[in-house]
Amino acid sequence: MTHRIKIKKKDTIEEIKCNDGDVLLKVLLENNYDINAYCGGEGICGKCKVKLSGKKIKRPKEQEMIFIDQKELKEGYRLSCLYKVDNDLEVNLKEQEEITVMTGGIITELDLDLDLSKETVKLSKATLDNQKDYLQRIYEKTDTKKINYKYLIKIPNLIKNNELTVLKYKEKILDIDTKNKNNNFYGLAVDIGTTTIVIYLLDLKTGEEIDVNSFYNPQKKYGADVISRINYTQNNENGIKEIKEVLIKQLNKGIKKLTKDNGLTNDDIYKVSIVGNTIMLHLLLGIDALSIAKSPYVPVFTEELELNSNEIGLNINQNAIVQILPSISGYVGADIIGDLLTINIDSLKGNNLMIDIGTNGEIVLNKGNEIYSCSAAAGPAFEGANITFGTAGISGAISEFTIEGKEFKYSTINSKEPIGICGSGLLDIIAELYKYGFIESSGKIEDQKKLKPWQKGYLKDYNGQRAIKITNKDSSKEIYLTQQDIREVQLAKGAIAAGIEILLQKTNLKADALDRVFLAGGFGSYINPDKACYIKMIPSILKDKIIQIGNGAGTGAKIYLLNKKAKNRALKIKEKVNYIELSVNKKFQTEYINSMSF
Amino acid sequence: MTHRIKIKKKDTIEEIKCNDGDVLLKVLLENNYDINAYCGGEGICGKCKVKLSGKKIKRPKEQEMIFIDQKELKEGYRLSCLYKVDNDLEVNLKEQEEITVMTGGIITELDLDLDLSKETVKLSKATLDNQKDYLQRIYEKTDTKKINYKYLIKIPNLIKNNELTVLKYKEKILDIDTKNKNNNFYGLAVDIGTTTIVIYLLDLKTGEEIDVNSFYNPQKKYGADVISRINYTQNNENGIKEIKEVLIKQLNKGIKKLTKDNGLTNDDIYKVSIVGNTIMLHLLLGIDALSIAKSPYVPVFTEELELNSNEIGLNINQNAIVQILPSISGYVGADIIGDLLTINIDSLKGNNLMIDIGTNGEIVLNKGNEIYSCSAAAGPAFEGANITFGTAGISGAISEFTIEGKEFKYSTINSKEPIGICGSGLLDIIAELYKYGFIESSGKIEDQKKLKPWQKGYLKDYNGQRAIKITNKDSSKEIYLTQQDIREVQLAKGAIAAGIEILLQKTNLKADALDRVFLAGGFGSYINPDKACYIKMIPSILKDKIIQIGNGAGTGAKIYLLNKKAKNRALKIKEKVNYIELSVNKKFQTEYINSMSF
Repeated sequence: MTHRIKIKKKDTIEEIKCNDGDVLLKVLLENNYDINAYCGGEGICGKCKVKLSGKKIKRPKEQEMIFIDQKELKEGYRLSCLYKVDNDLEVNLKEQEEITVMTGGIITELDLDLDLSKETVKLSKATLDNQKDYLQRIYEKTDTKKINYKYLIKIPNLIKNNELTVLKYKEKILDIDTKNKNNNFYGLAVDIGTTTIVIYLLDLKTGEEIDVNSFYNPQKKYGADVISRINYTQNNENGIKEIKEVLIKQLNKGIKKLTKDNGLTNDDIYKVSIVGNTIMLHLLLGIDALSIAKSPYVPVFTEELELNSNEIGLNINQNAIVQILPSISGYVGADIIGDLLTINIDSLKGNNLMIDIGTNGEIVLNKGNEIYSCSAAAGPAFEGANITFGTAGISGAISEFTIEGKEFKYSTINSKEPIGICGSGLLDIIAELYKYGFIESSGKIEDQKKLKPWQKGYLKDYNGQRAIKITNKDSSKEIYLTQQDIREVQLAKGAIAAGIEILLQKTNLKADALDRVFLAGGFGSYINPDKACYIKMIPSILKDKIIQIGNGAGTGAKIYLLNKKAKNRALKIKEKVNYIELSVNKKFQTEYINSMSF
Repeated sequence: MTHRIKIKKKDTIEEIKCNDGDVLLKVLLENNYDINAYCGGEGICGKCKVKLSGKKIKRPKEQEMIFIDQKELKEGYRLSCLYKVDNDLEVNLKEQEEITVMTGGIITELDLDLDLSKETVKLSKATLDNQKDYLQRIYEKTDTKKINYKYLIKIPNLIKNNELTVLKYKEKILDIDTKNKNNNFYGLAVDIGTTTIVIYLLDLKTGEEIDVNSFYNPQKKYGADVISRINYTQNNENGIKEIKEVLIKQLNKGIKKLTKDNGLTNDDIYKVSIVGNTIMLHLLLGIDALSIAKSPYVPVFTEELELNSNEIGLNINQNAIVQILPSISGYVGADIIGDLLTINIDSLKGNNLMIDIGTNGEIVLNKGNEIYSCSAAAGPAFEGANITFGTAGISGAISEFTIEGKEFKYSTINSKEPIGICGSGLLDIIAELYKYGFIESSGKIEDQKKLKPWQKGYLKDYNGQRAIKITNKDSSKEIYLTQQDIREVQLAKGAIAAGIEILLQKTNLKADALDRVFLAGGFGSYINPDKACYIKMIPSILKDKIIQIGNGAGTGAKIYLLNKKAKNRALKIKEKVNYIELSVNKKFQTEYINSMSF
């Protein structure tokens, strides 16, 4: 038996079909609707809720009541991952919000020095005194030594013209054609985050950044974190292919927008540099990443890769070079190599700490020439997952928070009506609530009786949990911070603090011996460093040494795109950086517990 | 209107159809019947004659009477290139004869030193203390640095096994798989001559030559010489593709036979080295060679090429490396580089001459470090074309000839009834007839009245030309050498002699200063060197310095196949060898005329 499902969006109604008993989430994803499912469809994150209407909407399950309030339940909201379709339905989908992704980076002089060129050459005339073959003439004019067969075969037709346009990479001719009318020569730097993706468009003739496009990683519908996605690849036939293709498709969409917006065609893109965490890079290439998820956490590859655009499936010039930066280990990826290129760790004096806080928290510490790295499983709390009212950095997300007098003051992204709390807002809220005694140093929300009279009113019960109401009465939506949310933040910030401590111990340094602390990544760049120190995510003594570098990974990809020396630099950095596995590190376990409190 | 053509062979009858007015030769070639058409279907070589039967066989044209005698005309023989089908027909085809191709070479120690290997490796165990990625483990075990994307993607499945079989070429992994059951690892050395093709099968594990297969170049149906074939590519849409594909198809057939005969599969072939003249190599790759045919005779490429088996269309292991040896110029090809590798010109003391007589005569002379080359347009006379009773080295070809007492004595290949004259026989006949005064030193057949009585009986008229009857009365077929045939040989031998003279002049050497004369190529290896000197194709003084090296080009391909150092040697030889264009060389013209006489 099949059922019909009407999908209502703001301006459109579409109809799809499914079989009796199909899980609604799966049906929606299969039909390419963009639904969040941070937990991978396990019914434990509550992000996949949709509004249903129709004759026979099923009663909510108990589990759904944890994530959906009474009002919404009455309106027809259900978790799509728990809803097995047994009747015709209408599903109301909200338009996906634009996200605010950290796309800027620190101002680094991007030195243009490519090993790829597109040049017009004029061949010398063949005469009886100069019978040199045509290929040799082209080699000599372009300082090359190799050519693809498919272009060799074109030469007899091309030599009718005197001027040729030659695309060369190192000593190889990638393409050759009659003198081109258009001189366009562009490249892309791509940062594939677990949650968000950023594509930068750069002019390879000048090194100039032309435009940027950022969007959600479409794989998030298979789970918010990398492990959920790997689980999906294991539990679904063709899962690896599916999860790869959805990403490639979205990248191609992003590239199309960038080229179109700038009056270019996809053929004008000749080079791409890609960073991302190790698992994202495996999934991008359709490579099974299970071995990274299981002890002993061994990746299939961490090496720099150079691919052809067709191999990877990117819809750009067919001769474009696609470079994937090297990674350090299964949990310290090419994105971190990008950060380290950006901060010039290979020529940086003194002792330096670099923290990239995204879905995971990767930490690198160098003591002169000695470099250590680790990855602290901070979890996606700071990206909005596992937090009751958590959200990404979309319009209406509470991004700043202070307590002034007896009032909660907050501001939201784009000054829209508050709809949730994003990472930086979450950190502010925790820090302020702790400062004003709403939260004990253990993380426990203070008992009502110990609170001052003005504070008591903020203390609420939310779905059976002790919670603090964040929004004021003017807000159309009531937003709470629950005890569980605080625990999530404690886990996240504790992991990072413990990671830092382990690296300090490894290098026999005290925190005050550090010269600089670089904060990278979306969250790391938006947060208030003072607050991060206040809740002891970062040692307080480092407060004035913090430098926020923005999307260091993306900047690193740009450096790699534009400068041929970056390849060698990256390889050397990769070789130098030692990786410390925290999951089996006893000291880390102890430090982790010690670092939970504020 | 269509007509039906019955094709009768020894044991089979097949039926094909054609349109009214179609040229019979074209119809037969299109249906893949193997017909000689040395002149490319111009009606001037007479080699495409076939025996017709049916109700209405057309009367012979005047032109046909030149090539077909009265008896055969009555039997229904016609030139298929001149015969437009206007009725149903029966065509009687003889089975194609096996040719005797010079496949041996001088005994050179073939030093096995490959940069390609197929090895089984055992990966170290992944542990928490050794989290090195799998690709790195494979790289380290195999001393490699690169991998094809399509094999990278296979690694997660492969690591379930501990042992892997890795195919590597230099520092790149070409293929990787679970430990192979079969250890087969073979290569091919291929010599693509204008007339004949030789494929050698070698064991890449031991360097041993396992088998050899030789056959006609199937392109001969488009013309005996390279220029006719280039004309075909120009005058026929898709001619380049067609002429390429017919060759590739035949190569694949030859490879299949070799592998099958030796209990192998095509997948066991991992490397191929190819030599051939420059035009053959262009046509092999489907590259328009017109620019070599026209002044200033510039080839599209002379560089060494490395291709994938798929690119070229060879049906061997999909990861096999196909190497095409470098050429020197449009008329001194990779086959000559093969010869020069074989004679070790790069370490040879003294002054040396090397002559490769095939369809063209390529000549190389080194005076110590100074090396010059040229190509003398000898024409295909020595390969049986343009000679009235000329034939390739097939069974029944007269291959040796002497005059003893007053008798003509000859022997034929495989001692079969004489059917024609092959190159070595032709040279013997000319030398002996000249020696005994049948021919003047100018090449003219002596007037009847000046001949001795016993000689007069041999002088005949053949199709209006003065001729000498070669066969004795026991022969079932009468075979003649005509005045025109002698002129063809004079042109051929004169070109070679003049070429040698030009190189001697260039290096300021007299012939007696030469230390060695290497004769390569099918013809060069079968001929009697004394006779070659007697008719002054080679200076007489060099008679005792001649070394016949057999198929030096093929031996060179074997050296290239088995030894990685050969690549660099070949490049250095290519760089060192100067090419002298004879077609515009005034001295050559003079020498050519001087060299025609005996």
